[in-house]
Amino acid sequence: MALRFALTPGEPAGIGPDLCLLLARVAQPHALIAIASRDLLAARAIELGLAIELIEVAPTAWPDRPAPAGALYVWDTPLGAPVVTGQLDTANAAYVLDTLTRAGQGCLDGTFAGMITAPVHKGVINDGGVAFSGHTEFLAELTQTPQVVMLLATAGLRVALVTTHLPLREVADAIDRQTLLDVTRILHGDLQRYFGVARPRILVCGLNPHAGEGGHLGREEIEIIEPALDSLRAEGLDLIGPLPADTLFTPKHLEHCDAVLAMYHDQGLPVLKHKGFGAAVNVTLGLPIIRTSVDHGTALDLAGSGRIDTGSLKVALETAYSMAAHRYSVT
Amino acid sequence: MALRFALTPGEPAGIGPDLCLLLARVAQPHALIAIASRDLLAARAIELGLAIELIEVAPTAWPDRPAPAGALYVWDTPLGAPVVTGQLDTANAAYVLDTLTRAGQGCLDGTFAGMITAPVHKGVINDGGVAFSGHTEFLAELTQTPQVVMLLATAGLRVALVTTHLPLREVADAIDRQTLLDVTRILHGDLQRYFGVARPRILVCGLNPHAGEGGHLGREEIEIIEPALDSLRAEGLDLIGPLPADTLFTPKHLEHCDAVLAMYHDQGLPVLKHKGFGAAVNVTLGLPIIRTSVDHGTALDLAGSGRIDTGSLKVALETAYSMAAHRYSVT
Repeated sequence: MALRFALTPGEPAGIGPDLCLLLARVAQPHALIAIASRDLLAARAIELGLAIELIEVAPTAWPDRPAPAGALYVWDTPLGAPVVTGQLDTANAAYVLDTLTRAGQGCLDGTFAGMITAPVHKGVINDGGVAFSGHTEFLAELTQTPQVVMLLATAGLRVALVTTHLPLREVADAIDRQTLLDVTRILHGDLQRYFGVARPRILVCGLNPHAGEGGHLGREEIEIIEPALDSLRAEGLDLIGPLPADTLFTPKHLEHCDAVLAMYHDQGLPVLKHKGFGAAVNVTLGLPIIRTSVDHGTALDLAGSGRIDTGSLKVALETAYSMAAHRYSVT
Repeated sequence: MALRFALTPGEPAGIGPDLCLLLARVAQPHALIAIASRDLLAARAIELGLAIELIEVAPTAWPDRPAPAGALYVWDTPLGAPVVTGQLDTANAAYVLDTLTRAGQGCLDGTFAGMITAPVHKGVINDGGVAFSGHTEFLAELTQTPQVVMLLATAGLRVALVTTHLPLREVADAIDRQTLLDVTRILHGDLQRYFGVARPRILVCGLNPHAGEGGHLGREEIEIIEPALDSLRAEGLDLIGPLPADTLFTPKHLEHCDAVLAMYHDQGLPVLKHKGFGAAVNVTLGLPIIRTSVDHGTALDLAGSGRIDTGSLKVALETAYSMAAHRYSVT
């Protein structure tokens, strides 16, 4: 059964539109709908020398099958100003958010089975007068979700984070019992719901080097992390750790787990991006909707050049399709 | 030209003696001298079913060529108590330190071109009544070295650390200008001196996620790291960064560098050990002597079993030999 998915190309001056057009050269297994300016996509296709047919769709007429190879469904969304490839323009800040709102609302109301996002540029949106700290926070607010979890995934490795975009000096104080309980439960439940893992086994990193080495290198493992993991184990969760992060990412540990839970950004993501370079996906867990994203930025200097790799977007699409298949029990 | 090197098997109840004996099955290119109890090695060889000839040497009679395959030079060092394989004994704490002192002094006085260390057990040494926080600190004190740098290396990647075994909450305050200057200069100079890199290019991680994202995620990059790197660049050092740690460990960056400088333990070592599992070496830079080490622990439960991997010790030996070749211009 074919489902409908929303694809947001994100920052119009960056490589997001290029990625969507390059991708449309081959057919998708589901009806994938780009939520973007039709004019922008048409102009970028000419710039790239790509003959992609843009098929306009709208809430009054949703497609019921995938677009053929060489065609892309577009839900036309008006720009604030014409786009100059590679040049940020605050006049299009509201446009970018409009595309995200359409996608998110469409997921909430059942129009879309999930949404896949290309990169936005936080700076220009804020400069455009809209407070915006990222896709994840925007969608959490849109869907009234109090706690979300950032999961990065590539073939053979999934890494979720307890804390994300915090200065390093604030990390230790942000690791509290309630956050650990909430994040781990979301990770466990969403591995079951979206990834088909009946009984998820999760490896948990310590906060300190050597996971505190029995208290010699910090006491958060003893005072906060271990008690929280014990409570979760009593609920039936299969958790290993807290383990030293420098030995956890080795075959003997990773072979027997479904995800790693790292305490902070630079503890977990360097390995993930080293291993999955160009083929990693960013998934927001804990939302009532399915949302995946590429793991790279807007690459303004490469927009319009055609010299870009669609690897991460492909993995983002495949992951969203797979999550929906598990969620809605379709194949 | 063959040189002499010291090999310390470390904790006598652990796998260190086993590693040395397993290694002695093949000939080394240099005269490698185990500094250990002869009785211990003889007993462990029997336990492992290995026919290794133990050739006793001493300061009055150093060998002038490598031992043949199947033989190991031993500078007999008396135990405090007989060793039970796999069982720690505080009575041998002083013995372990004696072997390190002999090796370190021998490096200082020119007897040895370098030393290679198998793992010790910090806990039992401290329980034995000797304050001991690790090989590195012991050798820094023995050689009166104020600042040393921990470098982990495997094929294709070297990672040095600005801070090492600190609780995470103390890391941000430990990143100060003088430490950054000292550590980076040592790394630069030792890459030239010991690794044959004429003009080292070093990638430097930021402290915060996304290297602080222009101050939005922490200001240490702007206030401390960038000014320190600028001062070092004015001295002629080739430094790239501060870069986000999660994107730094990808091919496009790593292909063009000689080492990565990470700000703290779990920012740099998970990738290194993921990439180099079982074949990584720990090198102490900044010492007036050459010292390399395996990157694993004493594995008490595997001592005497023969089911151990000598990969890391081999890399530790090869690295020490190579460092000496560059240092003393021999091949």
